[in-house]
Amino acid sequence: MTANPTACLLIIGNEVLSGRTRDANLQFLATRLGELGIPLREARVIPDVPETIISTVNECRAQFTHVFTTGGIGPTHDDITSECIARAFGVPWEVHEETRVVMAADYARRDPPVEFNAARLRMATLPKGAQPIRCTETTAPGFSMENVHVMAGVPRIMRSMFEALAPTLEGGRPIHSRTVHANYVYEGQIAEGLAAIQARFPALDLGSYPYYRNHPDGRPGGGVALVAKGTELADVEAAAKAAFALLAGFGTVVPGEPPPE
Amino acid sequence: MTANPTACLLIIGNEVLSGRTRDANLQFLATRLGELGIPLREARVIPDVPETIISTVNECRAQFTHVFTTGGIGPTHDDITSECIARAFGVPWEVHEETRVVMAADYARRDPPVEFNAARLRMATLPKGAQPIRCTETTAPGFSMENVHVMAGVPRIMRSMFEALAPTLEGGRPIHSRTVHANYVYEGQIAEGLAAIQARFPALDLGSYPYYRNHPDGRPGGGVALVAKGTELADVEAAAKAAFALLAGFGTVVPGEPPPE
Repeated sequence: MTANPTACLLIIGNEVLSGRTRDANLQFLATRLGELGIPLREARVIPDVPETIISTVNECRAQFTHVFTTGGIGPTHDDITSECIARAFGVPWEVHEETRVVMAADYARRDPPVEFNAARLRMATLPKGAQPIRCTETTAPGFSMENVHVMAGVPRIMRSMFEALAPTLEGGRPIHSRTVHANYVYEGQIAEGLAAIQARFPALDLGSYPYYRNHPDGRPGGGVALVAKGTELADVEAAAKAAFALLAGFGTVVPGEPPPE
Repeated sequence: MTANPTACLLIIGNEVLSGRTRDANLQFLATRLGELGIPLREARVIPDVPETIISTVNECRAQFTHVFTTGGIGPTHDDITSECIARAFGVPWEVHEETRVVMAADYARRDPPVEFNAARLRMATLPKGAQPIRCTETTAPGFSMENVHVMAGVPRIMRSMFEALAPTLEGGRPIHSRTVHANYVYEGQIAEGLAAIQARFPALDLGSYPYYRNHPDGRPGGGVALVAKGTELADVEAAAKAAFALLAGFGTVVPGEPPPE
C-alpha cells in the first residue's frame, strides 16, 4: 500500500490576519482534497510580505506533495503572490503570451471595452514555465509551477480554478469518514472507551468533538460527536460501530453529525 | 517609536484540516489582537501529531512575541496539546494541585456529582511552571507557558479564556483602520492610483478587496473596498481620504465596508 500524497494550503493575505475577512476557502479545499485522497496536512495564513511568501513556499513545496495557495493574484499593488512564486523558483516573471491574447480578446469583447492597462497585464504575467489554470469565471488565470498551485482568493473563482485543476492531480485512496453522535453524553465519560477503540484501529484517525447547542426539543445542552476517518472503509465502519456501542452505554446515539447549531 | 509586539496563532486539530469543522477562532483573535496592538502575523492549522505540534511551537515561540494555541486540551486521547507543550519546553507534565482542587470542588457540586476520573484529571495536568488561565465557562483551565498561551478550541470557551488572559498581555499601539467602498468600480481601474497612495504612506497597510454580490437595489454586480490600516491614526485617515477621492473618480464612493453578502 502506497502512502497517499499530501497537501498544504497557504492562505496569502493581510485581510485574513487582520480579521477583516473570514477565510472561506480552507474548509472547501480540505473537503475536496480529502475526497481526492490528497489529505490536507497543514494550512498557513501568511501576510503580503515577499520574504515570508518566498520562504514559506520553498519550505512547504519541499515538504508536501502539493502546495495550494489562495489570494494575491489580482491587479493591485498588494497582489504579489505571482512575482513571489517566480522568485521562490528562481525564474523570470514575464508576460505569458497565450494568456495575454486570451485576456485581450475578453476585454475587447466587453461593452464598453475594458482597457488592458498595466495593472491588468500583471494578471497575464506568470513565472517562466508555469502552466496556466483556466477557469470559467475569469480569463485571468491561476497557474501551477511544479507542485505549487496558485489560485485566486475570491471563493467563487478559487473553486472554479480548483475544479479545473483537480482532474490533473494524481489522487490517492479516498478518505472515508463515519460519524455518530449522542446528546447529553460528555467527553469525560467516554474518553477511556474511546482510547481503547483508537488502540484497536491505530491506522484510523478517531476524533471526539463536543458540541454545545439547543436540541430540537428546545432543551439546552450538548453532547459529543465521534468521527472515524481513514482509507480502509471496513476499518472505518468497524470503528464507527464500536463508537456507536460505546455511546449507547451512556445515552441515545444517532448516526451522523449533530444537527447544525 | 517601539515596534509593536507580534502574535502567531496555532489552530491544532485534525477536524479543521479534514473540513469537518470550520474554524471560528481565527477571525475573533485577529480582531481582538489588533485592538490590543499585538497584530497577528501568521496562523497555522496543524494536525494532532506530537512531533508537528512540538516543532511548530518551538519554531513559532522563537519567532513571535506571543503564540496562541486553540484546540486539543479536552479529556480524550486526541487532546494532546498540553503534553506536547511540556515536551516542547522540556519540562515534566504533572498534575497542577491547585487546579485539581478547583475542578474536584466543581465536579462534587454538580447534581448528580461528576466522577473525577483519569480522563478528566488530564485537564488538571499542566506543564511544570505553567500559569493556569481560568475562565467563567469551565473549571478546566487553559494555561500560559512563557510566551505560549494555550486555549480551548470551543469558541465560547476560547473567548472566555482569551478575555481572562488579555489584561495580562502587554499591548502595543492599537491598529487603526478606515475603509471606503464603491460599487461598479473594479480593481483594474484604480490599481495605479492606489499604488501611488501606498507609496505616499509606506508605513500603512493599504489593501484592495473586490466584492461580488447583489446590491440593495437588487442589481447584480460588485465593487471594490479599500482598507487603510496602521498605528498612526492621522496617516490612516489621510490615506482613507485619498482612497475616497480616488474611488470618487470612478463611481459613487461610500465610507465603511460594503453591505454583507
